[in-house]
Amino acid sequence: MELIDGNQIARQVTEELAEEIGKLPENHRPKVAFVRVGEDPASVSYVRKKEKTAAAVGIDSDLHVFPSDIPKEELFAEIDRLNADPSIHGILVQAPLPSHIPDQEAFDRVSAEKDVDGFHRINLGKLCQEDPTGFVACTPSGVIELLDRSGVSIPGKHVVIVGRSLIVGKPLSLLFLRRHPQGDATVTVCHSKTPNLEEITRQADILVAAVGRAEMIKGHMVKPGATVIDVGINRVEDSSRKSGYALKGDVNFEEVSEVASHLTPVPGGVGPMTVAMLMRNTYKAFQIAQD
Amino acid sequence: MELIDGNQIARQVTEELAEEIGKLPENHRPKVAFVRVGEDPASVSYVRKKEKTAAAVGIDSDLHVFPSDIPKEELFAEIDRLNADPSIHGILVQAPLPSHIPDQEAFDRVSAEKDVDGFHRINLGKLCQEDPTGFVACTPSGVIELLDRSGVSIPGKHVVIVGRSLIVGKPLSLLFLRRHPQGDATVTVCHSKTPNLEEITRQADILVAAVGRAEMIKGHMVKPGATVIDVGINRVEDSSRKSGYALKGDVNFEEVSEVASHLTPVPGGVGPMTVAMLMRNTYKAFQIAQD
Repeated sequence: MELIDGNQIARQVTEELAEEIGKLPENHRPKVAFVRVGEDPASVSYVRKKEKTAAAVGIDSDLHVFPSDIPKEELFAEIDRLNADPSIHGILVQAPLPSHIPDQEAFDRVSAEKDVDGFHRINLGKLCQEDPTGFVACTPSGVIELLDRSGVSIPGKHVVIVGRSLIVGKPLSLLFLRRHPQGDATVTVCHSKTPNLEEITRQADILVAAVGRAEMIKGHMVKPGATVIDVGINRVEDSSRKSGYALKGDVNFEEVSEVASHLTPVPGGVGPMTVAMLMRNTYKAFQIAQD
Repeated sequence: MELIDGNQIARQVTEELAEEIGKLPENHRPKVAFVRVGEDPASVSYVRKKEKTAAAVGIDSDLHVFPSDIPKEELFAEIDRLNADPSIHGILVQAPLPSHIPDQEAFDRVSAEKDVDGFHRINLGKLCQEDPTGFVACTPSGVIELLDRSGVSIPGKHVVIVGRSLIVGKPLSLLFLRRHPQGDATVTVCHSKTPNLEEITRQADILVAAVGRAEMIKGHMVKPGATVIDVGINRVEDSSRKSGYALKGDVNFEEVSEVASHLTPVPGGVGPMTVAMLMRNTYKAFQIAQD
């Protein structure tokens, strides 16, 4: 079994990007604005990670933090201001937002040209249309990049995706379906309402788990020799650890590593790719803004 | 085997709509603009059919015909004029357009609120988002309506769609995946690059053929008792007919009717539904414009 090392592949992507951006004049660099509402510890840590990676590849960033009781109209006015600011090429609104501000409304408020998260409905539409000028969400595009750089060929394969979320399952299915050297797959999407899940997962040449249920994909659900991509990150109680929990994927690593030909670990698989692809989207937004 | 009668079900839909619209005051009716470029006989006949159905349900319509050498900018200026006209609730640009005007560009030019064809990228994005304010393309929504009115339940079923077009395969897969009483299916999309097609089609509880190849779905490719929906309309040479051709679906009707539990004929299956759903979209656009 070959482990797909997401940290290493993400480093390749960011190093290539750093080299590209390094050729630009000092005072003419891509710039991304991070918008954070409230002090949710996970959000604080995600945004900090993104800021660090941006700095490492030579992308400027601004952090805009608002109190968790900011009225929706006020937050949207701030987003509008960032939309209008020509020095900002990408805008990322860190989810989840407080409950009085629907995430999707905020994503759709960001102008589609600066939507480096790929969550805007116009960018979803462009993904359906296979229009390369759009932005694709970072986790699904990170999955494709992982496969590509691990030498796993996609055309003609049967891809089974477990999970139909707007953030992962649906856009990923559209990517695998594209008429494209990294597309042309037969794609099945399963979910909580699929009665015969293991009958279907066992057909997968490439199996993607994106449900958010710890270790639900067991060894007997995987075809021998399949490639398995684990998008899940679940906190599981673990009193032996100082933090009191361990991070587990949607895949039972121990069992599936006996069956699969390629497998991503959690952590260290898809996770690091998401941030790398965000940087790539920001550079793309910058390039488009120059045209 | 039960034949799914698209003509009859389309009539139900349009009669219900006529009743609904009949309650509106005479001078306050939905209105759709048909845009036709050139004199392609198929386009002339499709648009005429749509005009007739509109009249039958009480929807006003305007026909705008332009010469096939109209410059793109000029056509787009006409579309802009219709977008800005508050008396027009829906706009339909009949495809295919002459080659100097890319279809998709014209579809995206129609304002999303008047896009009763459901082809605008914003409406594709809303379909991904399961946002009910969007417009869904008429053929895929017609397929769902046919199943619903034939008593074929969708949740938990394995739906296999053969064909990944932007007009049918992709939006239909998104409809079947929705968290919805007419969704919640497990969905597989196959296409020309699928190596083991019949192995997959034989798993379908509901099989949808939308490839545009006459009679390619044979009896042995269908699971006994499956529901089969034939979206294809292909002209096949037939010297015994005055026209010189016969219309054939993507399904070999004779063979599959021996195996399937429900089957749509061609013609008289999905075709009539497309026009009926267009009327429903126009009424929806009218209602939204009143809010």
